[in-house]
Amino acid sequence: MKTTTVGRYLVERLEQCGLRHVFGIPGDYVLGFCDLIVASRQLQFVGACTEAGAAFAADAYARVKGLGAICVTYCVGGLNTLNAVAGAYAEKSPIVVMSGAPGLGERARSPLLHHRVKDFNTQRLIFEKVTVAAEALEDPATAPTQIEETLRACLRQKRPVYLELPRDVVDQPCAGPGPLVADRPARDPAALAEAIEEATAMLRRARRPAVLAGVEIHRFGLQESLLELVRRSGFPVAATLLGKSVISERHPNYVGVYEGAMGRGDVRRLIEGSDCLLILGAFMTDINLGVFTARLAVARTINATSESIQIRHHQYNHVPLKEFIDGLAGRAGRFRRPRRRPRPASTARFRPQKGRRLTIRRFFARMDEFLRDDTIVIADIGDSLFGAADLTIHRRTEFLSPAYYTSMGFAVPAAAGAQLARPGLRPIVFVGDGAFQMTGQELSMSLRHGLNPIVFVLNNEGYTTERFIHEGPYNDILNWRYHRFIETLGGGWGCEVRTEGELEEALATAEGHGREPSLINVRLDRWDHSLALERLGRRLARQGGLKPGRG
Amino acid sequence: MKTTTVGRYLVERLEQCGLRHVFGIPGDYVLGFCDLIVASRQLQFVGACTEAGAAFAADAYARVKGLGAICVTYCVGGLNTLNAVAGAYAEKSPIVVMSGAPGLGERARSPLLHHRVKDFNTQRLIFEKVTVAAEALEDPATAPTQIEETLRACLRQKRPVYLELPRDVVDQPCAGPGPLVADRPARDPAALAEAIEEATAMLRRARRPAVLAGVEIHRFGLQESLLELVRRSGFPVAATLLGKSVISERHPNYVGVYEGAMGRGDVRRLIEGSDCLLILGAFMTDINLGVFTARLAVARTINATSESIQIRHHQYNHVPLKEFIDGLAGRAGRFRRPRRRPRPASTARFRPQKGRRLTIRRFFARMDEFLRDDTIVIADIGDSLFGAADLTIHRRTEFLSPAYYTSMGFAVPAAAGAQLARPGLRPIVFVGDGAFQMTGQELSMSLRHGLNPIVFVLNNEGYTTERFIHEGPYNDILNWRYHRFIETLGGGWGCEVRTEGELEEALATAEGHGREPSLINVRLDRWDHSLALERLGRRLARQGGLKPGRG
Repeated sequence: MKTTTVGRYLVERLEQCGLRHVFGIPGDYVLGFCDLIVASRQLQFVGACTEAGAAFAADAYARVKGLGAICVTYCVGGLNTLNAVAGAYAEKSPIVVMSGAPGLGERARSPLLHHRVKDFNTQRLIFEKVTVAAEALEDPATAPTQIEETLRACLRQKRPVYLELPRDVVDQPCAGPGPLVADRPARDPAALAEAIEEATAMLRRARRPAVLAGVEIHRFGLQESLLELVRRSGFPVAATLLGKSVISERHPNYVGVYEGAMGRGDVRRLIEGSDCLLILGAFMTDINLGVFTARLAVARTINATSESIQIRHHQYNHVPLKEFIDGLAGRAGRFRRPRRRPRPASTARFRPQKGRRLTIRRFFARMDEFLRDDTIVIADIGDSLFGAADLTIHRRTEFLSPAYYTSMGFAVPAAAGAQLARPGLRPIVFVGDGAFQMTGQELSMSLRHGLNPIVFVLNNEGYTTERFIHEGPYNDILNWRYHRFIETLGGGWGCEVRTEGELEEALATAEGHGREPSLINVRLDRWDHSLALERLGRRLARQGGLKPGRG
Repeated sequence: MKTTTVGRYLVERLEQCGLRHVFGIPGDYVLGFCDLIVASRQLQFVGACTEAGAAFAADAYARVKGLGAICVTYCVGGLNTLNAVAGAYAEKSPIVVMSGAPGLGERARSPLLHHRVKDFNTQRLIFEKVTVAAEALEDPATAPTQIEETLRACLRQKRPVYLELPRDVVDQPCAGPGPLVADRPARDPAALAEAIEEATAMLRRARRPAVLAGVEIHRFGLQESLLELVRRSGFPVAATLLGKSVISERHPNYVGVYEGAMGRGDVRRLIEGSDCLLILGAFMTDINLGVFTARLAVARTINATSESIQIRHHQYNHVPLKEFIDGLAGRAGRFRRPRRRPRPASTARFRPQKGRRLTIRRFFARMDEFLRDDTIVIADIGDSLFGAADLTIHRRTEFLSPAYYTSMGFAVPAAAGAQLARPGLRPIVFVGDGAFQMTGQELSMSLRHGLNPIVFVLNNEGYTTERFIHEGPYNDILNWRYHRFIETLGGGWGCEVRTEGELEEALATAEGHGREPSLINVRLDRWDHSLALERLGRRLARQGGLKPGRG
């Protein structure tokens, strides 16, 4: 029987799963494992400035490619990733967290090794809270099984997992990996058939059916199934914010992003006025639903996720989502074909007014015409997200944003992850000034690896979302000259824009800088905002019992 | 009976404990509590760029002032502090982590609120792993007790605690705080007396007694007790690296930092050659002990900490450390007075050689003459720490470094915390280039608050400590122009130095810039290093079974 070492086993499995990059930062407890990554012909070690940046990059990589991974050292590295891993957990992004750890031998000799906290289980117990599997590979005899089960949980549930590698176990011999076995989740054919029948009957009776598609369509690669269903049924399709771009936004049946009362009225009326709403692969989160302004009557809803199919007030389990969607597509001939809905009138072509001061609304209107077929839009939290919600995404899966967990700092490091996952894409990043101060240094990762994101810092001098929820001096931040960070990095190009004319020049220059990052400091008025942000701010204030900021 | 609200109760107690600053970043779940901090006449809210930076700043503040605190939002804020809080736990720094959380009412209405991970307990359960108390204030009736017990645990054990504030409980009425009650930890007078007798007898018989003082002397404010013992007994005193500056390093009895085989030979011989070593308030960690090269025979050792007194192989509990030290001082007349030890010959005055390329050794030799009475030295991890270990600190408690937990990124944000804790101090910060890429943006916090640290980036183009343990491409990082970060910030002063002459000019300029931060990019050869770093690298390599980098 083939033998290998624990570390090589893990590396080989990751390669077989299609992984090509591992993000991370070295430390003495993980250097041996880093060597295995460097030695691998398929994996590349991608150094980040911070472990949090590595984790955000791996998350974005996973969202684009299907699996991501980070390699960090014990506690001082691993604990820095907690927030980003929690976000990946919340938004179903499958990343493998690999952390070095003190060797078993050295632990026996001393209680107080550097980087240790309470005891040697501390980091693993913490990661149990934000993963679907957390294993310490302390025995070469069991390590293969632990690795198999952990990776399976990651790929099946599309959520993060944790593997801890004591440094004196990494090179221990163990049984070699067998062929990769396809995962076979539980499947109940009778439940599947009944659910399809019942849903079909509801959809047949409906006069105003509609589809609301969510993030699981991305995660489980169900875009073709969705397209086929839409093609055959003719149903109009909206997307949740987190799931934006599940379907090309140029598709004739696509109507826009549904955001409850925060979003566009025509989308809202279509979805909330539907007498049979088919929700596919979405989480009913507060931000997605415009802070519970959604009026979605359960009695009129089919809510299908990878975890269960809910039809009105009852639920079917062990029904594979893909087969459910395909089953409905197969019966689409029986559905009432909806009246052809006129698409919203095309917005007028953007005409820049040279000396006019930029506003968020005009900025995003211009952005909608700046996107290309090779663009991936990555939006951080705040108006970066809400403004981007109405952009027309040309193809599929080219919009990333942490729209449920809503952690600031995702976008700049995510740009590196997304582009390494699919090198044909060019990232356009929208990030607030507050968020740039958090992780903007990760532009260094893009520069180092020859990537070419165009980063727009939406600079209205503070935590604008918080201002609209509730104003206070804590919402102010120092006004950096963000575009000058290029000079610290020693590469890339940057500028500051205040007017529509200056933006035009910047866009032309950025497009020309095809081999390095661009960093554009978009100066906006402190109280400038999208309508969506204003509505969200008021609702979050009301929900929290706060006095909203100036609207 | 006086009544107040849960939030105001907490604010009032923190004020009574002497707190004057709270570091943090706002978020919608914590805005109401932020308002209470802003409204407080004694507390100031200090915004950081990142929650990790806020936590490092609060840790440094606590090390200087005795208590520190952070205010962050749920999960996306709180989880970002995990690493820094773990470091404060490991090194006994008393910080209060206060996190907003969803209101109890809104949780009942929805399972999927933004920022949530697995369930509403997730963050608190995680913080239980890195604190000595973690409480969610979910009931105004029990909140006062929970606050009292949590703060008591923090101040008694000198370790972090966690308080979670659901936003609809913050303004709920509760009983007002009574007068602050002094803490009375368990105390066994008989054990105290016996321990003092036994230790006295050992020290009487000793021919070569010595003292090794550690970080608890700082944490528990025992510097006067230590001084008195040293004065009366005449014993020589060394410090651990984490405890450096427990005693003024100009004190005639002070011999230097003990670092096992990593440190100076004369200190090593004194401590390891002692026939009765009195260890006061120290942790026997691997970095402190030069990675277990310490030869400290337990049979010749009295090891007294806040947790127990260990004499040879037996242990006394409930013996207050201060009373133990004072008891020994009271009996010092019975000790054999050591032969007067000649102090090491004063090092020759530093004479800069104008065109000579800088080296670590020459740099720190110059630094030793740059320190003033108002200087606080803050060293990040790596040669920033090892080089700084041999600096002569003028007064007490003016050296901070995470020398046990050894997390990179501590120093730049810590400078803001330390200076706000004691405004008469001017921080001199030594930080590696890798660590600056992690948290260097927190120089913004110092600039915003009118502080004037002098930050030296020891730039040898990579993770140098890791290079010496084991070289690999992952040890390389992008070579930023660190000094130009000043231009991104829009304030402060910066320059790059390569030679001893350029360093002299920079030092003169930095001293003159008394009202704002200075940022000096010290260009060093990639393989330049202190002797201590080389020895540490070899030992960590050996411990980890790795091939060391070039030495």
